[in-house]
Amino acid sequence: MRAIQIVTTRLSSCLRPIRFELVSSSSSPRLFSNSRRLICTAAATKSNGGRSGSIVAPLVENEEVQKIDVNPPKGTRDFAPEDMRLRNWLFNHFKEVSRLFGYEEVDYPVLETEALFIRKAGEEIRDQLYCFEDRGKRRVALRPELTPSLARLVIQKGKSVSLPLKWFAIGQCWRYERMTRGRRREHYQWNMDIIGVPHVTAEAELISAIVSFFKRIGITASDVGFKVSSRKVLQELLRKYGVPENLFGRVCIIIDKIEKIPIDEIKKELGSTGISEDAIEQLLQVLSVKSLDDLEDVLGGAGEAIADLKQLFSLAEKFGYSEWIQFDASVVRGLAYYTGIVFEGFDRKGNLRAICGGGRYDRLLPTYGGDDIPACGFGFGDAVIVELLKEKNLLPELGQEVENIVCALEKDLQGAAATVATALRSKGQTVDLVLESKPLKWVFKRAARINARRLILVGKTEWEDGSVSVKVLSSGEQFQVKLNDLE
Amino acid sequence: MRAIQIVTTRLSSCLRPIRFELVSSSSSPRLFSNSRRLICTAAATKSNGGRSGSIVAPLVENEEVQKIDVNPPKGTRDFAPEDMRLRNWLFNHFKEVSRLFGYEEVDYPVLETEALFIRKAGEEIRDQLYCFEDRGKRRVALRPELTPSLARLVIQKGKSVSLPLKWFAIGQCWRYERMTRGRRREHYQWNMDIIGVPHVTAEAELISAIVSFFKRIGITASDVGFKVSSRKVLQELLRKYGVPENLFGRVCIIIDKIEKIPIDEIKKELGSTGISEDAIEQLLQVLSVKSLDDLEDVLGGAGEAIADLKQLFSLAEKFGYSEWIQFDASVVRGLAYYTGIVFEGFDRKGNLRAICGGGRYDRLLPTYGGDDIPACGFGFGDAVIVELLKEKNLLPELGQEVENIVCALEKDLQGAAATVATALRSKGQTVDLVLESKPLKWVFKRAARINARRLILVGKTEWEDGSVSVKVLSSGEQFQVKLNDLE
Repeated sequence: MRAIQIVTTRLSSCLRPIRFELVSSSSSPRLFSNSRRLICTAAATKSNGGRSGSIVAPLVENEEVQKIDVNPPKGTRDFAPEDMRLRNWLFNHFKEVSRLFGYEEVDYPVLETEALFIRKAGEEIRDQLYCFEDRGKRRVALRPELTPSLARLVIQKGKSVSLPLKWFAIGQCWRYERMTRGRRREHYQWNMDIIGVPHVTAEAELISAIVSFFKRIGITASDVGFKVSSRKVLQELLRKYGVPENLFGRVCIIIDKIEKIPIDEIKKELGSTGISEDAIEQLLQVLSVKSLDDLEDVLGGAGEAIADLKQLFSLAEKFGYSEWIQFDASVVRGLAYYTGIVFEGFDRKGNLRAICGGGRYDRLLPTYGGDDIPACGFGFGDAVIVELLKEKNLLPELGQEVENIVCALEKDLQGAAATVATALRSKGQTVDLVLESKPLKWVFKRAARINARRLILVGKTEWEDGSVSVKVLSSGEQFQVKLNDLE
Repeated sequence: MRAIQIVTTRLSSCLRPIRFELVSSSSSPRLFSNSRRLICTAAATKSNGGRSGSIVAPLVENEEVQKIDVNPPKGTRDFAPEDMRLRNWLFNHFKEVSRLFGYEEVDYPVLETEALFIRKAGEEIRDQLYCFEDRGKRRVALRPELTPSLARLVIQKGKSVSLPLKWFAIGQCWRYERMTRGRRREHYQWNMDIIGVPHVTAEAELISAIVSFFKRIGITASDVGFKVSSRKVLQELLRKYGVPENLFGRVCIIIDKIEKIPIDEIKKELGSTGISEDAIEQLLQVLSVKSLDDLEDVLGGAGEAIADLKQLFSLAEKFGYSEWIQFDASVVRGLAYYTGIVFEGFDRKGNLRAICGGGRYDRLLPTYGGDDIPACGFGFGDAVIVELLKEKNLLPELGQEVENIVCALEKDLQGAAATVATALRSKGQTVDLVLESKPLKWVFKRAARINARRLILVGKTEWEDGSVSVKVLSSGEQFQVKLNDLE
């Protein structure tokens, strides 16, 4: 049950009373940070003219204004300037790596048709969708990931694009999760995807891109590694133990939780799919295998799983990131659609959740009704990496950087200061123009805060001569210069 | 009424049947582009083991896969690579201008508390909100504009930030509008805002920033102009005609529609607020005034409206954009919260909707319960400007740009090609690595499509010597070079 409350505000000092209505619900108690509430009737009152249709509420003198909840909705973030600088720093590295690898940037609507995300494989996504019915009665959802949209766009483009496609995207994704350990309900995700290459060279290049990114931001192979396996391992195991193939997706999702929930719970869930207890024991044993040789002993050398993985490790050497990767049969990743190589980046100290993850999803396009085109890709969130950088003391110091601060020494000269600012900006110089009359002490303080390199003062005598005073703030050096000569 | 339909798909050629469930609603008929639908029962069926909890649907051989709707939800856009290049080009100009003016970038959640946007002033926003209740029973909405979030963040920051703040943002905004004349339901909006400056110097600088932007992308003062007025004009008029001040916001919203709906409709709406017919006639007459001198005749010279506007026109001269702006009493802008100077950019041919708009909103922060801090800003959408650029033939030609395409001449050398690609990328060169064995003809075609500058071929003989073949594609020049010497 929600209560609709109309709060009519009036500032006693306000020449033009502005009415503002807040609709609150009993379940969002944080809406008002002030506990005192003023509740008026919701009925519209006729105003002076008395005609129908008036929506003017009666004026009440000296009402107190209710402060809104100043926090963003639970699980979401504001990006104040200092946060935005870090986000831009991170995203620019994502973009620069993608550019070096020749990938093209794409994006999709943050709001997609709900059906695009609904899969039946025990994935958590379904229960975590931010979904609703729009005013046109369409079921829509805030995207929980980018890959289904990519598949949709690739199918839409059809024959008009030449394969392979190498695309990247940085997009906000939403999941309504329980808020634990600093988990948020939205995050940005960097994706790189290759559409149209069936060979492991594709996965090898994707991992190479992530390694390049780590290196750029100061993360080394002793900080981070990649666990690599193939869904084909599990598939061949299931076949070996006589487990029906249609259980594949469901089993993958359960196994992905191995390090997150107790092993008895895993066994129970696997049992509930109909796999025999015997098969479960053998399965779990094989999943603990950490070397390709041991795996070969179990599976035999003939299967695709072993061949793919061997090729990947060979390519890793050629790409130059052997020390970053290791085989780990337990890696299956939590999405239903992977079909081949899967990998995830992890911190070697074991403090954090997976940093990134990806793999081959050759069946996703046909599942959506598209052509049978092989594909692989990865997702890399903006949350865990920042935790890691913090832990390693690798977060960059990013201050505001403005080259000039321009200030008129008298009120009459504010127009002149505007002329100076325009001249500098047209030469590509960044300028913070002081828009009010302020004491010099204030100006110097602001200059320091924005890391200004120079203070340009516009004074009466100099300006009559077409000149300004320039103070280089690092050295204290000061000189006069004609505006035209100011570079 | 919605119907839940479970569609179980199986590719006959698929080794691992992947089940996919699409939830469709009767009101979104476009969900399937294929008219044939396969509908199974929604009940979960027990699988082999027969234990409860199984969610495996029965397998049906040779089912046909339904192609999903490949379009983004109505009113939204995908950004394929060519669209994304244009978006990045536009956004980079937004960012570069903001940087030259010394503004800091910020962002807010695209999903905000609904209450933040609900105002009672006859604005369309309320009826156009994409709003819903989340799983935690909170009323939330996709933001229709950025300014309320800015106000929220400024209040949150409180005394921890030094005024004035100069912030900019580029964010996606959502309005559920009727889809007419190519209008979409989402657009990106560039905002620049100044918090803490009560003087017209602030508005003057904002317009200067937009003018700088126009100049950068090739738009001139003969293409575009700014209509400028002040809400104080209307306020003084209402006072003059004895109209109660509490009608201010409502009257502004009605008057903003003057060029959008018939004048009789305007009169009717104004009448419904209680203003006398006589006052309406006089009001409409004054709103057609196009010169400050004429306005001064009506209002007298003593008011703030005339003083502010005169100062703005004087500053426009100093900033160097006099030819871009003109007084127009009919401009009031459609948002309830403006209080002083208002302006909008328009195309002089009159073909397009307003290109951008903004003004002073000194009362917004106190309305939300914050301190009484003056503020002004503008919003600049990404839609109309692109239409204008198209019309003026000013859209840039933006192709993909990759410096190198690297290709192994034999399958065995794909690892070597990976080594070459890694070496080039570590030197800051962009590389498209050919990930499969392809004929040279195919490689040349791809090189042309991505505008590659050089083709690097990795052949057996050269590679044994640690060398590769380089072909400069513009000149046809070809040479061999040691990998270490390749720059």
